Amino acid sequence: MPRYDLVTFLSDYGLADPFVGLCHALLAYRAPHTRVVDLTHGIRPQDVRHGAIVLADCVDHLPPAVHLAVVDPGVGTGRRPIVIAAGNVLLVGPDNGLLWPAAARLDGPAGAWVITTRSAGPSRTFDGRDVFAPAAARLASGEDPDTVGLPVAVDTLFKLHLPTANVAAGRIESEVLLTDRFGNLQLSATTADLDAAGLAPSMRLEVQGRPATCCSTFAEIPQGELGLLPDAFGRLQLAVDRGSAAQVLGLIPCQIVTITSITER
Amino acid sequence: MPRYDLVTFLSDYGLADPFVGLCHALLAYRAPHTRVVDLTHGIRPQDVRHGAIVLADCVDHLPPAVHLAVVDPGVGTGRRPIVIAAGNVLLVGPDNGLLWPAAARLDGPAGAWVITTRSAGPSRTFDGRDVFAPAAARLASGEDPDTVGLPVAVDTLFKLHLPTANVAAGRIESEVLLTDRFGNLQLSATTADLDAAGLAPSMRLEVQGRPATCCSTFAEIPQGELGLLPDAFGRLQLAVDRGSAAQVLGLIPCQIVTITSITER
Amino acid sequence: MPRYDLVTFLSDYGLADPFVGLCHALLAYRAPHTRVVDLTHGIRPQDVRHGAIVLADCVDHLPPAVHLAVVDPGVGTGRRPIVIAAGNVLLVGPDNGLLWPAAARLDGPAGAWVITTRSAGPSRTFDGRDVFAPAAARLASGEDPDTVGLPVAVDTLFKLHLPTANVAAGRIESEVLLTDRFGNLQLSATTADLDAAGLAPSMRLEVQGRPATCCSTFAEIPQGELGLLPDAFGRLQLAVDRGSAAQVLGLIPCQIVTITSITER
Repeated sequence: MPRYDLVTFLSDYGLADPFVGLCHALLAYRAPHTRVVDLTHGIRPQDVRHGAIVLADCVDHLPPAVHLAVVDPGVGTGRRPIVIAAGNVLLVGPDNGLLWPAAARLDGPAGAWVITTRSAGPSRTFDGRDVFAPAAARLASGEDPDTVGLPVAVDTLFKLHLPTANVAAGRIESEVLLTDRFGNLQLSATTADLDAAGLAPSMRLEVQGRPATCCSTFAEIPQGELGLLPDAFGRLQLAVDRGSAAQVLGLIPCQIVTITSITER
Repeated sequence: MPRYDLVTFLSDYGLADPFVGLCHALLAYRAPHTRVVDLTHGIRPQDVRHGAIVLADCVDHLPPAVHLAVVDPGVGTGRRPIVIAAGNVLLVGPDNGLLWPAAARLDGPAGAWVITTRSAGPSRTFDGRDVFAPAAARLASGEDPDTVGLPVAVDTLFKLHLPTANVAAGRIESEVLLTDRFGNLQLSATTADLDAAGLAPSMRLEVQGRPATCCSTFAEIPQGELGLLPDAFGRLQLAVDRGSAAQVLGLIPCQIVTITSITER
Repeated sequence: MPRYDLVTFLSDYGLADPFVGLCHALLAYRAPHTRVVDLTHGIRPQDVRHGAIVLADCVDHLPPAVHLAVVDPGVGTGRRPIVIAAGNVLLVGPDNGLLWPAAARLDGPAGAWVITTRSAGPSRTFDGRDVFAPAAARLASGEDPDTVGLPVAVDTLFKLHLPTANVAAGRIESEVLLTDRFGNLQLSATTADLDAAGLAPSMRLEVQGRPATCCSTFAEIPQGELGLLPDAFGRLQLAVDRGSAAQVLGLIPCQIVTITSITER
């Protein structure tokens, strides 16, 4: 197997505790040649879907890497620690759906292994340090997945399917996937859905009863209105210029928004 | 051009989204020899002045580097993506004033370029990943600024001038620039202003109607009083010992404080 | 002295200000061979005990390193900047108790030095940048502690003793040391105390008047009950499954909890 110059790391550990730092130190020690890049550790605690969305959004925009991801409410139980090979990356984390959408984005899992190695010690509550980071370090160092675990059939993996949008002419029904720091709302609808619904730049729209404009930058959004524009990951986002769409609309992840063209009403 | 061993990175991206991580991964891939150090990503969202102050404070205390800075409410619009050469550093970011005070601190811009290269893709909302980090990677690798953009006259750059203080004998009128995590208030006044106003250590002062002392460490501040002392960047700060001056005074950035010596009243 | 490939860094600086980044840049410049890993910068402002607990918990789980730690309410005063040698590590920080429990965990201090070198400049409020990080960089580069300071007797060091638990048959009285991001409460009691009190897995317990179970993973905790289980650092923690024990019990660090076996009441 090749060595990987990059390990990415995503979790719900936050940065106020030393959990992330201990994993970094372990990776630095056991895979000194590799760079470790934090995608984020701000995944909402134990929110597997949140982590799965962010990881899937990122994998398209990253070089070959071992992607270490830990959002793991079932730590210590029967849920399996796994490695998935997909595209030119290896995904390492719990088999609870967290890794699935990322693997799907990379043309689906080409292989999977259940990790059978763990650090000695009595703790069963910190598998990031004791199971996942050690496995990621070995994989980044070029060890074959067979040395950290046993192959399993890909169709036994826990599957998490992210919501898509319902698209009709002039109308998109979509789920809120994420809000970002700026209050932009990332939708399950993609830019392709925009085309499929026949919604084009500068068209007048309505979102949750408010006027909205289809555009491509925040600054094009008319004062006091909503904008519907491509985000950085191929999806659509709702935004207001120099303000928070999440606050204006009072929306949070998992809620539904309906986008209609005004002519179509 | 020389290679740079250090890229610093400052933004308003926060750490809860993967924006910072994606820029780090890109820098690691395209400029693998360089170290990337985060100055902070806690700049208040879209607060260009906040970012400009922090960056300017830091550049004096950093080795030769490419300084990547992104606080960019005008992303995707006509505002220009730029590189500024100043002292022994290159500054990379939007031409909205963010970089200006740092360049001014380093004896002023010696050259400037408008970045003309961007990563392929439809997104116009994440120039950190698509424009600025790729340019920073090439500059850190020793490429000439001419390979990432076109030279422009320095006097066409957007200028942002940070506030200074009004100084008279025994009196300083100053703006609050920042509050830090400890509630210390960084002022636009400098330690030189302190000398100019004739305010010396151990002198009795009054700030916003409260007794204050001119000192050099937090522990010298008398219980229940304010201290006026040099901060780590050559400016003055208002502080209380083991407490928050920001809370005690109810002040936030952009507000004015008046410091008078009690003998002078 | 050997070079160290790893410098860890813990502080109460937070990440919203550039304090951590400036120390990183300095370390990158002066000790370019070493990796710097942040343990956390989320120690509560000026809470030396909080920092001491986290550092002591971590040192057992880290490779040979220089451990830089700064929680320093007395910055600029007579409190001494020190280096402590313990086990195969060097600890660098203020002599206010912050380093003591970590050194104790590593079989006690084998040597100590008062740092006598500091960067030029008028500031007396940022010893992380001006005293501690420069010393850590030199030590990581293989310089002898004698080159950064003067040896002092170990018994002159400021000692901070972390609380332990009162253990009787079927009963543990323990202090809350920490809460983590998930609301788990880390106790001063250890897994050894559990054995000493005769409390075994699956035993029915009572904590603060609520039913609790002795177990080893979060998922084993019965719905609506408390779990008492080993944390990742050899101590015991109180937890609820997919919820916050800190919220359920309304407890914060320094408060006392009593754990009794129901049969023993």
